[in-house]
Amino acid sequence: MKISIGARENAFPNPVFVVCTYDAQGKPNAATLAWAGVGSSGPAALVFALRPARYTYENLLQRKAFTVNLPSAQYVAETDYFGIVSGRDADKFAVTGLTPVRSEVVDAPFIAEFPYSAECVLTHTLDLGVHTLFVGEVKDVKVSERLLVNNKLSLDDEKILTYDFAARAYRVPGDIVAPAFYCGLRLKN
Amino acid sequence: MKISIGARENAFPNPVFVVCTYDAQGKPNAATLAWAGVGSSGPAALVFALRPARYTYENLLQRKAFTVNLPSAQYVAETDYFGIVSGRDADKFAVTGLTPVRSEVVDAPFIAEFPYSAECVLTHTLDLGVHTLFVGEVKDVKVSERLLVNNKLSLDDEKILTYDFAARAYRVPGDIVAPAFYCGLRLKN
Repeated sequence: MKISIGARENAFPNPVFVVCTYDAQGKPNAATLAWAGVGSSGPAALVFALRPARYTYENLLQRKAFTVNLPSAQYVAETDYFGIVSGRDADKFAVTGLTPVRSEVVDAPFIAEFPYSAECVLTHTLDLGVHTLFVGEVKDVKVSERLLVNNKLSLDDEKILTYDFAARAYRVPGDIVAPAFYCGLRLKN
Repeated sequence: MKISIGARENAFPNPVFVVCTYDAQGKPNAATLAWAGVGSSGPAALVFALRPARYTYENLLQRKAFTVNLPSAQYVAETDYFGIVSGRDADKFAVTGLTPVRSEVVDAPFIAEFPYSAECVLTHTLDLGVHTLFVGEVKDVKVSERLLVNNKLSLDDEKILTYDFAARAYRVPGDIVAPAFYCGLRLKN
């Protein structure tokens, strides 16, 4: 017997996207959000939800470009700070000491120290009420050497953060329990 | 120094959404997907990407309703099966033995055994190429008693699955590393 808890927007797990943009003056900014995911496999696209009040919102509409940076656990305080403070009030890269690298592919900076950065051009927006969905086509991805194991991506050594809405906390990935596209085959056959 | 790996749609973590619908004959169907997340906090909305070839695609356009069911680790084989096999070829609830419960709120079934079910009406679609984004407004959420601890949602005891694209595997949540909206305050002050 399940219990009704009303209309809620929760999902789990949530990724932690640190979205980087330039403002009108060219100042790099970083904003943390968790209502996000993959939009499409072709063209490769990422999607996230943003409130219009956020500084990144203006930057996105002006620059039509952004990067999505996935943080590892060692940068949890910087990641949280990026979500607490507005770029209107602070130079967040100066405060954290993290390094904004100008993308050669899109008009946005990415974070040198973070293990995964997807460079995107804005392709769609969709107003959903409190949040607007932003969709970006991925033009390139830059990863740390630690993420590449025998030329394949591996998340085992790099503790990329997850957001747990229920605990209002960041988690690291847990153990692998089963292979996908495989463990269900016994039911098929 | 980061390494370019080309345009990829990856993000991490990915949730595991089991999307349930009725087909034109009223047969309940369940489809597993991982390109998904929260769309908005108000109205509460969930979003996911679906290929037009999937059976759920037709069902969604006909019924304009669905549920998002989050699986716990004990149902990993059933969850994987829901992603491997098409509802055109099998009665997936009959094969797995899981229980489709007719929602009283939307025209779709939810899975009795899964710990979290969000009942949604389809509000938007957005064609992105290989995938189409589907956005649904959440009308109610049903959860298992195990998810409610002192009347608050807690994910500590319920091992809700995550999809790791790099390993092509399902993971469980890992440890909490820091509180959100808090651990970055020392940088602000």
